[in-house]
Amino acid sequence: MSAETLGSAAQAAHTSGPEALSEHYGRVRARTEMLCEPLATEDYCIQTAPEVSPPKWHLAHTTWFFETFVLLPYLPGYRVYQAGYDHLFNSYYETVGRPFPRPQRGLLARPTVAEIYAYRAHVDAVMGELLAGDSEPEAQLAARLVLGLHHEQQHQELLLTDIKHIFAFNPLRPVYREHTLPAGTATEARWRERVAGVYELGHDGAGFAFDNEGPRHRTYVQDHVLQDRLVTNGEFLEFMEAGGYRRSELWLSDGWRTAQAQGWRAPLYWEQHEDGWWHMTLGGLQPVDAHAPVCHVSHYEADAFARWRGARLPTEAEWELAAAEQAIEGNFMDSGHLAPLSAPPEGAGLRQLFGDVWEWTQSAYGPYPGYRPLAGALGEYNGKFMSDQMVLRGGSCATPADHVRATYRNFFYPGERWQLVGLRLAADR
Amino acid sequence: MSAETLGSAAQAAHTSGPEALSEHYGRVRARTEMLCEPLATEDYCIQTAPEVSPPKWHLAHTTWFFETFVLLPYLPGYRVYQAGYDHLFNSYYETVGRPFPRPQRGLLARPTVAEIYAYRAHVDAVMGELLAGDSEPEAQLAARLVLGLHHEQQHQELLLTDIKHIFAFNPLRPVYREHTLPAGTATEARWRERVAGVYELGHDGAGFAFDNEGPRHRTYVQDHVLQDRLVTNGEFLEFMEAGGYRRSELWLSDGWRTAQAQGWRAPLYWEQHEDGWWHMTLGGLQPVDAHAPVCHVSHYEADAFARWRGARLPTEAEWELAAAEQAIEGNFMDSGHLAPLSAPPEGAGLRQLFGDVWEWTQSAYGPYPGYRPLAGALGEYNGKFMSDQMVLRGGSCATPADHVRATYRNFFYPGERWQLVGLRLAADR
Amino acid sequence: MSAETLGSAAQAAHTSGPEALSEHYGRVRARTEMLCEPLATEDYCIQTAPEVSPPKWHLAHTTWFFETFVLLPYLPGYRVYQAGYDHLFNSYYETVGRPFPRPQRGLLARPTVAEIYAYRAHVDAVMGELLAGDSEPEAQLAARLVLGLHHEQQHQELLLTDIKHIFAFNPLRPVYREHTLPAGTATEARWRERVAGVYELGHDGAGFAFDNEGPRHRTYVQDHVLQDRLVTNGEFLEFMEAGGYRRSELWLSDGWRTAQAQGWRAPLYWEQHEDGWWHMTLGGLQPVDAHAPVCHVSHYEADAFARWRGARLPTEAEWELAAAEQAIEGNFMDSGHLAPLSAPPEGAGLRQLFGDVWEWTQSAYGPYPGYRPLAGALGEYNGKFMSDQMVLRGGSCATPADHVRATYRNFFYPGERWQLVGLRLAADR
Amino acid sequence: MSAETLGSAAQAAHTSGPEALSEHYGRVRARTEMLCEPLATEDYCIQTAPEVSPPKWHLAHTTWFFETFVLLPYLPGYRVYQAGYDHLFNSYYETVGRPFPRPQRGLLARPTVAEIYAYRAHVDAVMGELLAGDSEPEAQLAARLVLGLHHEQQHQELLLTDIKHIFAFNPLRPVYREHTLPAGTATEARWRERVAGVYELGHDGAGFAFDNEGPRHRTYVQDHVLQDRLVTNGEFLEFMEAGGYRRSELWLSDGWRTAQAQGWRAPLYWEQHEDGWWHMTLGGLQPVDAHAPVCHVSHYEADAFARWRGARLPTEAEWELAAAEQAIEGNFMDSGHLAPLSAPPEGAGLRQLFGDVWEWTQSAYGPYPGYRPLAGALGEYNGKFMSDQMVLRGGSCATPADHVRATYRNFFYPGERWQLVGLRLAADR
Repeated sequence: MSAETLGSAAQAAHTSGPEALSEHYGRVRARTEMLCEPLATEDYCIQTAPEVSPPKWHLAHTTWFFETFVLLPYLPGYRVYQAGYDHLFNSYYETVGRPFPRPQRGLLARPTVAEIYAYRAHVDAVMGELLAGDSEPEAQLAARLVLGLHHEQQHQELLLTDIKHIFAFNPLRPVYREHTLPAGTATEARWRERVAGVYELGHDGAGFAFDNEGPRHRTYVQDHVLQDRLVTNGEFLEFMEAGGYRRSELWLSDGWRTAQAQGWRAPLYWEQHEDGWWHMTLGGLQPVDAHAPVCHVSHYEADAFARWRGARLPTEAEWELAAAEQAIEGNFMDSGHLAPLSAPPEGAGLRQLFGDVWEWTQSAYGPYPGYRPLAGALGEYNGKFMSDQMVLRGGSCATPADHVRATYRNFFYPGERWQLVGLRLAADR
Repeated sequence: MSAETLGSAAQAAHTSGPEALSEHYGRVRARTEMLCEPLATEDYCIQTAPEVSPPKWHLAHTTWFFETFVLLPYLPGYRVYQAGYDHLFNSYYETVGRPFPRPQRGLLARPTVAEIYAYRAHVDAVMGELLAGDSEPEAQLAARLVLGLHHEQQHQELLLTDIKHIFAFNPLRPVYREHTLPAGTATEARWRERVAGVYELGHDGAGFAFDNEGPRHRTYVQDHVLQDRLVTNGEFLEFMEAGGYRRSELWLSDGWRTAQAQGWRAPLYWEQHEDGWWHMTLGGLQPVDAHAPVCHVSHYEADAFARWRGARLPTEAEWELAAAEQAIEGNFMDSGHLAPLSAPPEGAGLRQLFGDVWEWTQSAYGPYPGYRPLAGALGEYNGKFMSDQMVLRGGSCATPADHVRATYRNFFYPGERWQLVGLRLAADR
Repeated sequence: MSAETLGSAAQAAHTSGPEALSEHYGRVRARTEMLCEPLATEDYCIQTAPEVSPPKWHLAHTTWFFETFVLLPYLPGYRVYQAGYDHLFNSYYETVGRPFPRPQRGLLARPTVAEIYAYRAHVDAVMGELLAGDSEPEAQLAARLVLGLHHEQQHQELLLTDIKHIFAFNPLRPVYREHTLPAGTATEARWRERVAGVYELGHDGAGFAFDNEGPRHRTYVQDHVLQDRLVTNGEFLEFMEAGGYRRSELWLSDGWRTAQAQGWRAPLYWEQHEDGWWHMTLGGLQPVDAHAPVCHVSHYEADAFARWRGARLPTEAEWELAAAEQAIEGNFMDSGHLAPLSAPPEGAGLRQLFGDVWEWTQSAYGPYPGYRPLAGALGEYNGKFMSDQMVLRGGSCATPADHVRATYRNFFYPGERWQLVGLRLAADR
Repeated sequence: MSAETLGSAAQAAHTSGPEALSEHYGRVRARTEMLCEPLATEDYCIQTAPEVSPPKWHLAHTTWFFETFVLLPYLPGYRVYQAGYDHLFNSYYETVGRPFPRPQRGLLARPTVAEIYAYRAHVDAVMGELLAGDSEPEAQLAARLVLGLHHEQQHQELLLTDIKHIFAFNPLRPVYREHTLPAGTATEARWRERVAGVYELGHDGAGFAFDNEGPRHRTYVQDHVLQDRLVTNGEFLEFMEAGGYRRSELWLSDGWRTAQAQGWRAPLYWEQHEDGWWHMTLGGLQPVDAHAPVCHVSHYEADAFARWRGARLPTEAEWELAAAEQAIEGNFMDSGHLAPLSAPPEGAGLRQLFGDVWEWTQSAYGPYPGYRPLAGALGEYNGKFMSDQMVLRGGSCATPADHVRATYRNFFYPGERWQLVGLRLAADR
């Protein structure tokens, strides 16, 4: 999801210079492969739901992205590495070819994992040549390259969420990586207030951003409060014990229908044992920690929980105004925990705005006033998804730290739960 | 869809008095039956799509509404007319019983049409007694009664759209009512401008309104223009001839998928003959009038058309600000045409804001800041649908004239086309 | 289902003469309408399952059959009554047009019931003229007319089974006709033996028969026994109480999968009340009579029951050899009970072979050796269904007495239950 | 599919002795692994249709069979190799556990291929100990072991047909094994006659056979003729060119519906290029050889072809009587071609009865008179599938030569095409 504003990325290229770009490229690409180290060959091939992609597909698709949007247009004479890959690894770009059907990505025995790594190596080598010269790369090339790296970071997060789904489906309960999480403690949530007024929202043009984060524009925000930390598993358990999943009056109509049809009784990956609730994590099956943020709930569940508490979800404007005042720090992929953690001690501002879990908002995903997608195929990156989905904010424990911003807009369908998604409460004042 | 704010409806009751209420009740209820006069008994029983209801179901459901929400709570000792009807004719109120499955409404041979008219007569008689006394009805009773009448008017419109669907499905092409429409002439569309600023939006509390129209609140609106008339069939034909249904880059992703899956090539009810395009109307199969507003397009088609024109759909705020400055006049059900007409001659303000066709906006249907649904089962009227749908404004040629307002918010799923829905263009400035 | 052998039907025409044919026609056609007398107009229009047809469709389709296969080819200058009916009322004859989709028969508001009765009256009048002359009708015309009458009798039975389904679906539990059934008493079942040998099977050419009943041919039958009466509700209840619906080892694989997917726990129309099992009948909701034959069980349930009893279903040869030795007497539609009855007292031969319920056999429906369907469109009557279905024998309480024969082969899919179907046990010796 | 008659398998054990059994076991098990040699790890994991299983699943399931039905009951103290495998690798034995859902076999990343080979090695080692002693194994153990080996041979064939499906799905067109097929020449088909009479059918008890092949019994067979070779691709192309796939009158009703729904226009794996028809084979994409037998046609297509030719499919009795007179020789897996070949020169008897392609018959799969499945879970092997499927005879080019017999009864659903299935014509005389 996403296409940069050309100006801001060119800016990025200018400040870092060609060598830095080449290093940036190498660092991001290497991390993708590092994330796959714990995998067996078989783990790369599986697709356990239509919205999940096999890990090897992620490896190939991100490479196809550089080949299609950087090498082919900017390296004269470049020939595609392998006929057929343009079809197999095109995700959804209707204007540059015919995307392979998403629900069938797990039916592809070939290319093998080794062949895909060879594809990566080939494209990396050619990219190295392209970036090796003394002169600065052309602004548009640099912009596309930075876009490709942020695109790859998005797929790094998807790799982790998809591996989690693949492992959780398996009755043998594989472990991605043994881990010991720091023990959390209970902390009271505080309400933080903001007074009504006209505020500015959206990306201001400095540094990289996806096209959907701009243009920066005015909006009117009402008096409201936000909780200073995420909703916890313990709080969500109270909702469950109060019959939350059985009380239709707490739910949006589509949510209730979905919950009944899917048989939801708890967040995804939760299972009730004799000694309480457990859930699958990247570290295997673990007891649910009451102090950690609730995760893997749909927008519908988040909304029902909030209604039960007499509160609501934040708007994306409310969230962004709070986030704009804080440093981008939190429990990201870089912490290595790969699981949401209980909130740090109370401070001046809001806690857990960044990292841990993406936060559902009550805002439907749509264009900002004056929004223009990029010209050409990259215009398909974000704009065409501006219906039927909801905005999420803040990144998760599977997001690279240098990938998010206060203005970053993620989006999922309201019934989706396989991403690392949770919530924070808001209320009118 | 909808539950009034009690205060405003009580207000309505106060100004009109008990006698006027009783007359109001009689007038609305009679019109529902008048709309059914052209029907054969068989026409009352059919359900041609999950979202369509058999006409006899509408007759019974609106009656059940008064029985359930007025007679049972406000008439001591009232006993339900017939056991089982509470199940069969409950549309979606989970908190007052178990609604009969919507897609199966057309599988009910009984009660017969005559039995349903007897049910109506019974409830009308008892309602007559309840309203007959000298004293003014209690405020809450009056509020619910007015709500019930607006609810019945919504079903009057649904009756017409569902009859149209039922007749259009039938290869024998039945005619609901022969009609001759006034010939239209081409009129250029003009752009009307509004400057950015903080504006007030929503119902202000005088007169009846549904709960989702309030509370009145401030919002920031950008510089923009609106076209002064609806998009016409002729303009939509240009889109079709320019390959609009084959060019993925014009479409939202979910729209493109839906259009492919459903095989859309034209608006609903259109069919191509040797001598051009025809479409089913309530007056039977008719040639498409190039000057009349396009109708029966989904949000996705409306959005693609607007993108092709380099424009966009209005936000609901933009629409409402324009509508608030105009009289509520237009081609409503009361005109008797039961079809959208070409625009009247250009004037000072915007044309066709009310009547003709509901207008898709780019606003997802959600709660206004500070929104609170009614307490109890009537809280299910509007609030629980505030996800996954888009707002439409202005009423149609099947809407009773005294039913709409500038603040009225209708809502449908973006893929729905069986209602009388069209569009108006907007653009940034 | 079915097309006569021309020779045998011509024979029938010869013995009866033109006047008798005309009377025969009048008698059968009148009975169809008689069966509809208890219906309200609404009951004629409903289709509660893809395999059910609305009663008005049966009335029209049987008329279309005479129009298409008798009037158009044999009455010079005949013009179809109404354009469009050839599409709407063609059931499955691909070679004479384009059949209207079966699952959508219940979506047709028009033609109205009155219009369909007028269609019947018109065709009956023209048929009367065609048959009024002094001379005998041509042999092939006579053969088709007799085929049309047997076809209409098949739809008489379908009318009753479809009305039962339509009424049973309705939560208001309508009654087709009040009836009091004679009280039954328990009778022990006896096993009747037949020794192995070469036997002759199939229709021998005298009198009317459908094409699938011939040619008469030799077959080898093993030593076996048949029970002398049908399996009763009481016996089936024992199976249920012994966990029959929960024990996979009793079931065919496809049967088990179907039973799980459909949630079968009892025969169709059965429901458990506090005071025992009840079931919907044409006389409304009634207690299950332990002595009456079990009805509305699929082939899979019949097969599982037989396996539980250490027995099996009969082959169609075994059944026919027994039936060929008996008079065609039993509880048919003509008895007026319209429900299966407990067995009459034990006698010399097998009881309940004819009438009460159709009996599932273990024989898949296929062509007899040397089978040739009729030439032309009537060849579609029976032959094209010779796969995936099972043979049933003997007629039911909804079959006209003059419609069945020992050689008559009915056929349904093994998972179907809405017909009046039951079973008799067989075993090897 | 299948469970041996204990007597015959015990007999097999008696003649060969324990050492031979151990060698037999080793030979069959080794061949399974040999068939997988060309596979990449990724190829083992894919399931391209619900009826296809991933190769690694076949490897594990056949091993589970020996563990469950030989080691656990016959080796005192044996403990299962790995908890969970009993669930994952149980195909359909409801009475020994809970089979893992078949359509989800391709969603299992773990156990890895290496782990499954280790599982095989473990079970093989323990089986070796069990068979190592001097004394003859107990008769029932020997019978189960032989059954397990025939079971494994069935999965050898499935391995090849499933690999073909997995590779054919892949746009990269992988090759399982390069091969050059001998060039075929055209040979006229001859009709061979058999006179009517009572014949004996089924297995007589000497040597191994599955339970569904017996008991041997009498049947009456009519005068008929059989063609002396299989139907060729060239003949099938004539059917296609004569509009065979567009002429409803040639098809069974369920066949026509299936062909329309699936869009069939040619046999599975065929694709039309500018220079004619090609098809995927285990040797990659190849031109269709007009002289080779047609393959990958459903029962419905075979039946329609036969009807177009004025012929029919053989009954299984007709086929078996011809086959009983011939040696079991043909183009089996052992020939190494792994593709059907054109017929050998005309001879005294029928050609191609064994090997090349399985031959559809017109016989529905059901129990022979007096059939009794084995007691216990192995009774689920064949008996519970005796509905809804059709019998096929003769083995294919993927069948091991020592696996088939004249009495062997294979069975598939009439719409299935992914097996190596073709046809031979029959006719009445």
